[in-house]
Amino acid sequence: MERFVPHFQEQLATLKERLLVMGGLAEERVRLAVQALVEGNPALVEQALSGDGPINELHIEIDDRCLKLLALHQPMAADLRAILAAVKINTDLERVGDLAVNIAEAARRYSAHPPVKKLIDIPQMASTAQGMLRKALDAFVRRDPELAQQVLDEDDVLDTLKTQVFRELLTYMLQDPGTIEPALDLILVSRHLERIGDHATNIGEDVIFMVSGRDVRHHAGEAARGVP
Amino acid sequence: MERFVPHFQEQLATLKERLLVMGGLAEERVRLAVQALVEGNPALVEQALSGDGPINELHIEIDDRCLKLLALHQPMAADLRAILAAVKINTDLERVGDLAVNIAEAARRYSAHPPVKKLIDIPQMASTAQGMLRKALDAFVRRDPELAQQVLDEDDVLDTLKTQVFRELLTYMLQDPGTIEPALDLILVSRHLERIGDHATNIGEDVIFMVSGRDVRHHAGEAARGVP
Repeated sequence: MERFVPHFQEQLATLKERLLVMGGLAEERVRLAVQALVEGNPALVEQALSGDGPINELHIEIDDRCLKLLALHQPMAADLRAILAAVKINTDLERVGDLAVNIAEAARRYSAHPPVKKLIDIPQMASTAQGMLRKALDAFVRRDPELAQQVLDEDDVLDTLKTQVFRELLTYMLQDPGTIEPALDLILVSRHLERIGDHATNIGEDVIFMVSGRDVRHHAGEAARGVP
Repeated sequence: MERFVPHFQEQLATLKERLLVMGGLAEERVRLAVQALVEGNPALVEQALSGDGPINELHIEIDDRCLKLLALHQPMAADLRAILAAVKINTDLERVGDLAVNIAEAARRYSAHPPVKKLIDIPQMASTAQGMLRKALDAFVRRDPELAQQVLDEDDVLDTLKTQVFRELLTYMLQDPGTIEPALDLILVSRHLERIGDHATNIGEDVIFMVSGRDVRHHAGEAARGVP
């Protein structure tokens, strides 16, 4: 058995590296899509719409690595939880890539209209969501539940910005029906960004569970302590 | 070893049963939320907004069952893939429950305005999405890749309905700014229903992978055959 242990740890380290690469790609896709929206640059829009090949290949590769690690090494306890966390994080990152495509599609439609307003809150939402993603993945690799908790706490920032975006755009739409179509796309983009934050939050929750074996989803911790 | 085999199969059967219960709960939450929207019934809205406790508890329970099955029985090949599929399906069903809450929130806001129109496409989208979910879970339990493929094929129906809903509501909004706010909520509901269909599609893909070991996501099959 013993001679497999370093091999397993090496494989697990590679798995984490690949997840970081996947996270970097997902983050870059989001950045590009939002830049395409803000600049209204058709070449950037097309770039953001295509090129999800590498992220999709990594999605399959990482799933395969997890399956092989489980099948060949039959890890226990913390290592088992780490691999299950990787399976889930992989799914979350793939969906972030899909959301970046959704944002790019909205950017393409948006660029067909005169801009509704100077975009400030949406880039702010994007950088918050990207930061949450990065922090959540760092927390995974460093097995750091405090850092993961910070991600969970930041979700409120996104929620506030989303509400602000919605209210402001609603005002525009009510005042000038010509803004309805493009404003709708901005509202959809803000929802996509909120969901990217949700995926980062999911990753944060998985990290806390992986490290502590404590389930913080649905306030499971409170239930365990008898808090209603 | 041998004496563990029936025990494992029994536990795996229980896991599948619990996932079916979870699926039934998720589907019921969607049904209730859409009924609340269609009827504009405040009591139903409140019922749809609360009561996600059971689904959240099952989410944690099923994850725990998967972890224990992996840790105690170290299953191989098809059984291992079945448990990994269960982990992912569990996540998908939990998100469906969250989307039902989002629909109920939209229903609450919508009920504060005069109805924009008689709702026909949205209930149609809901029943399509619910049917896809049910079929995907049946395919999981029966290990039936053909049934899973049917779910993947039905996704286009939802997409067409979503586009139809959007175009119709946009017309209302442009004609009468008084409909902007409630119409926005209907558009959001149609997006939530589309995402429920996406989760059913994810489950279908996981079933195909579980049964065949063949990855149909991102046209992985095509890549493997050398199709560009």
